[in-house]
Amino acid sequence: MKVAVTRKEHFNAAHRLHNPEWTDDKNQMVFGKCNNPNYHGHNYDLEVTLVGTPDPATGYVYDLKVLSDLIKDHVLHHFDHKNLNLDVAYFKELNPTAENIAIVIWRILRQQIDNQYDLKIKLYETERNVVEYPIH
Amino acid sequence: MKVAVTRKEHFNAAHRLHNPEWTDDKNQMVFGKCNNPNYHGHNYDLEVTLVGTPDPATGYVYDLKVLSDLIKDHVLHHFDHKNLNLDVAYFKELNPTAENIAIVIWRILRQQIDNQYDLKIKLYETERNVVEYPIH
Amino acid sequence: MKVAVTRKEHFNAAHRLHNPEWTDDKNQMVFGKCNNPNYHGHNYDLEVTLVGTPDPATGYVYDLKVLSDLIKDHVLHHFDHKNLNLDVAYFKELNPTAENIAIVIWRILRQQIDNQYDLKIKLYETERNVVEYPIH
Amino acid sequence: MKVAVTRKEHFNAAHRLHNPEWTDDKNQMVFGKCNNPNYHGHNYDLEVTLVGTPDPATGYVYDLKVLSDLIKDHVLHHFDHKNLNLDVAYFKELNPTAENIAIVIWRILRQQIDNQYDLKIKLYETERNVVEYPIH
Amino acid sequence: MKVAVTRKEHFNAAHRLHNPEWTDDKNQMVFGKCNNPNYHGHNYDLEVTLVGTPDPATGYVYDLKVLSDLIKDHVLHHFDHKNLNLDVAYFKELNPTAENIAIVIWRILRQQIDNQYDLKIKLYETERNVVEYPIH
Amino acid sequence: MKVAVTRKEHFNAAHRLHNPEWTDDKNQMVFGKCNNPNYHGHNYDLEVTLVGTPDPATGYVYDLKVLSDLIKDHVLHHFDHKNLNLDVAYFKELNPTAENIAIVIWRILRQQIDNQYDLKIKLYETERNVVEYPIH
Repeated sequence: MKVAVTRKEHFNAAHRLHNPEWTDDKNQMVFGKCNNPNYHGHNYDLEVTLVGTPDPATGYVYDLKVLSDLIKDHVLHHFDHKNLNLDVAYFKELNPTAENIAIVIWRILRQQIDNQYDLKIKLYETERNVVEYPIH
Repeated sequence: MKVAVTRKEHFNAAHRLHNPEWTDDKNQMVFGKCNNPNYHGHNYDLEVTLVGTPDPATGYVYDLKVLSDLIKDHVLHHFDHKNLNLDVAYFKELNPTAENIAIVIWRILRQQIDNQYDLKIKLYETERNVVEYPIH
Repeated sequence: MKVAVTRKEHFNAAHRLHNPEWTDDKNQMVFGKCNNPNYHGHNYDLEVTLVGTPDPATGYVYDLKVLSDLIKDHVLHHFDHKNLNLDVAYFKELNPTAENIAIVIWRILRQQIDNQYDLKIKLYETERNVVEYPIH
Repeated sequence: MKVAVTRKEHFNAAHRLHNPEWTDDKNQMVFGKCNNPNYHGHNYDLEVTLVGTPDPATGYVYDLKVLSDLIKDHVLHHFDHKNLNLDVAYFKELNPTAENIAIVIWRILRQQIDNQYDLKIKLYETERNVVEYPIH
Repeated sequence: MKVAVTRKEHFNAAHRLHNPEWTDDKNQMVFGKCNNPNYHGHNYDLEVTLVGTPDPATGYVYDLKVLSDLIKDHVLHHFDHKNLNLDVAYFKELNPTAENIAIVIWRILRQQIDNQYDLKIKLYETERNVVEYPIH
Repeated sequence: MKVAVTRKEHFNAAHRLHNPEWTDDKNQMVFGKCNNPNYHGHNYDLEVTLVGTPDPATGYVYDLKVLSDLIKDHVLHHFDHKNLNLDVAYFKELNPTAENIAIVIWRILRQQIDNQYDLKIKLYETERNVVEYPIH
């Protein structure tokens, strides 16, 4: 039986939901206020969870200070106080919905975290809209 | 691998816990303060989670605005500012515990949400008492 | 210069907003969903603040354990898991709006707290509706 | 002695902090990440407080449903899912710091709320950065 | 299909992270500020979840008042306002990391809760550092 | 009319409430569990509020990044992950109640903040126990 450890971080960013293959009318109909061409923004709360077995020498599954630094270096450094559509390469051709942001963050961190640890992302776009990835 | 999306809503309601097949003494012994014949009440926080695959055209698993409207029309419209025992048909013969309220809300919404999406309900009766349904 | 100390407690109660001197139509027009004759309810969060000078021997303005016990004995004992309109004498002829509940709690606790301490009440009816009394 | 009543609302917006009379270097030095020319964004939590005397007929200082509608019509309609710098006329020549946003919201609502009520604004730009206006 | 019910409690405690088989330098390198020989402390938030089937007679999976009392008697009574390293026998030879505290609490409560109920522990050491046990 | 700006920070610390001029019995009677000779601890949430007039060139009353750095350098550096009684000189002869901690933090920061700004401290020892200083 394993233990899950979670570190919470946050970042603030602007974004716009838009599908360039659609007409303006269809974009407006599907994405509504989120399609504003001048962007809007959010305080994103990010929870990163690793699952593993505690090391008997430390009692840690994973040093959460190290995890926090990995998140800061590989996610927050690129996302915080940015325009996700314009400043973050991952979203040049990918709509920055909460779902896609969570998947991108998972892919970034999966390369930094040894595969012995399961990795899960939970992202709060607002207090009321939340996504989790992956779900098995 | 799939993504879970969650929408949080809330409603305020009165209720009373009571088993009509029991004596008043037994009801008082089992349900204590929650058996008050004049009712008490709660601010219920409701989280509705759908699990599915993001649509490549939108980046959405499910439009949370649509989900919010479904919850408002099919749950909040009937539960908010109501007396669950007296005003909500589902609880005429079912004790409105948090467990039963969550199961009823799941049944209501399951009829509104395509079966390609898994559906889960999390209900906070208070900050300290929480239920989730279903658990596999 | 003085220090304010605050203790937070909570209670769950049913209530109905209604003016018996008005017609049903006017009550419905003014109080809307809150006028439901079968009651609805809330988780009330209550903050009680005392202002005074720390005692040099203890470093306390007021022992918050003592304050918590006073609130439990004189407020929660009468309000928690009750129907405010039917079970609480103060509201037999007073509409249990958040404003009036806060004023009643202030009057109850003012009799228990030495007048050397200023006393303030903050009451959350929901996360979004809050009242404070008194304001000078 | 009076009662304060508070209604909480929220809006999501993009913004950029920038003084057009300064060089890019000075803007960067003073505003740092907040000067990003592509904007960033926040979930703003807004608390609007009115101070007055409860009406004996209702027990209300002010109907919070009415206050909520005023905030939605006169503030959220113009601010929510907007770029404050580009979409909101008030900030064409005014830097949209939390301080200035709070002052603008106060001025907007002051015209909608009878002067018998004191009016206060509290604005959370993030969980950690908060402003209040006016302070006497 | 089953229902999960959760009760939240909290306790305040001092602790120190330290491996007595290591040099002071290695302890400092691994545990950093958490190795302070004079201890530091936390407000721990504890969530205890049971999974089972609601009893048709009550609508309860498990009476949360009974669960709260079990947690108080068997966990909080021994952990609250204590020094985990010095006052709690379980940590005489076990490092009181959040992971180990969660596992110990699970072992304590597993002896009190009938095996027909799955048992899970979630422990918040801070708002940003959280552990869950067990994960299957 | 002025604007208040608030920055929230936090620190984790151990402490013990004790008056060395009293007998053990009297200390136990007055401070109860908080008198544990082995210490207990808390996650302290700290809000520092400055009141002033926004600078027309920046729109800031005070750069909250600068305020955050001042709090980190002059308060958190000395208080975080410490034993307040043993590690913090201010409490060698002063009982580290929440009231006294708030007064000490105010005195520390008052020396760092120009007197044109009013300065207020709000300290959460737990979610339920809160102090504010000064109150005029």
